[in-house]
Amino acid sequence: MHTKENCKIARLALQDTLDVVGGKWKLILISTLQNGKKRFRELVRDAEITPRILSKELKELEVNGLVIRTVRDTKPVTVEYSLTPYSKTLSKVIIAMHDWGMQHRKRIIGESSKKVKKAADC
Amino acid sequence: MHTKENCKIARLALQDTLDVVGGKWKLILISTLQNGKKRFRELVRDAEITPRILSKELKELEVNGLVIRTVRDTKPVTVEYSLTPYSKTLSKVIIAMHDWGMQHRKRIIGESSKKVKKAADC
Repeated sequence: MHTKENCKIARLALQDTLDVVGGKWKLILISTLQNGKKRFRELVRDAEITPRILSKELKELEVNGLVIRTVRDTKPVTVEYSLTPYSKTLSKVIIAMHDWGMQHRKRIIGESSKKVKKAADC
Repeated sequence: MHTKENCKIARLALQDTLDVVGGKWKLILISTLQNGKKRFRELVRDAEITPRILSKELKELEVNGLVIRTVRDTKPVTVEYSLTPYSKTLSKVIIAMHDWGMQHRKRIIGESSKKVKKAADC
C-alpha cells in the first residue's frame, strides 16, 4: 500500500543509504577494495582520486564500519585499508549500479551511432 | 577475472550511474514519482527539497531521459512531472538502496539499544 507514511519510510531508508555511501566516491572505493586490501597510494592511483578527498572519504567509511585501517609496523610504516565483513551487505547495491551503468553506456552509444548513421544518410 | 582492465571497466560503469543518478536527490525524486505524476509544489513538499535545487535536479533528470515535464493548458497553467519508461530500469538500484537503508537503520538502532542496556547495567 502506498500510504503517505509508507512512502516517507521508503524515502528515509533511501536517504539513510545515500547518507552513508552517497556522493561521488564511497561506492567506487568499496568496489576498488573488493579485490583485496590496498595502501593509500594504491587507492589514489586505482580510483583516480586526490589524496585529500581520499583521506576524508576513508575516514567516513571507517566511522560507518565499512572500511578498516591497519597500520603495519614496517619501516617505513605501512597503512593498509580493507573492507569489513559488513561492507559485503552493499554488494547488491554495487552490482545493481554497475549493471545499470553498463546498460546506460550501451544505450548512449547506440543512440549516438544511430544519430551518426542518420547524419550519414543525409 | 580481476584484470586491471576489467576493474577499470567496472569502475567506469559505477561512475556512469553515479554521474546520472548520484548526489543527494535524484533517486529520492525518482522514488517519489514512482507513485504517479506530481506537480512541482507537490514534489517540494513530498521530497522536502528546496524549489531551487528541485528545479536543477528535475532538469538534469529530464536531460537524461528519466523524467518528463508536461505543461497542461489549464488556468493557471499546470506543470507536471512523471517518470519515463526508461526510469523503470533503475528499480533494482532503488530497491537495493532501500533495502540496505532499512537493514542499516535496524543495525544502528540495535547497537544503540545494546549500548543503553550496557550503560544501565553499570
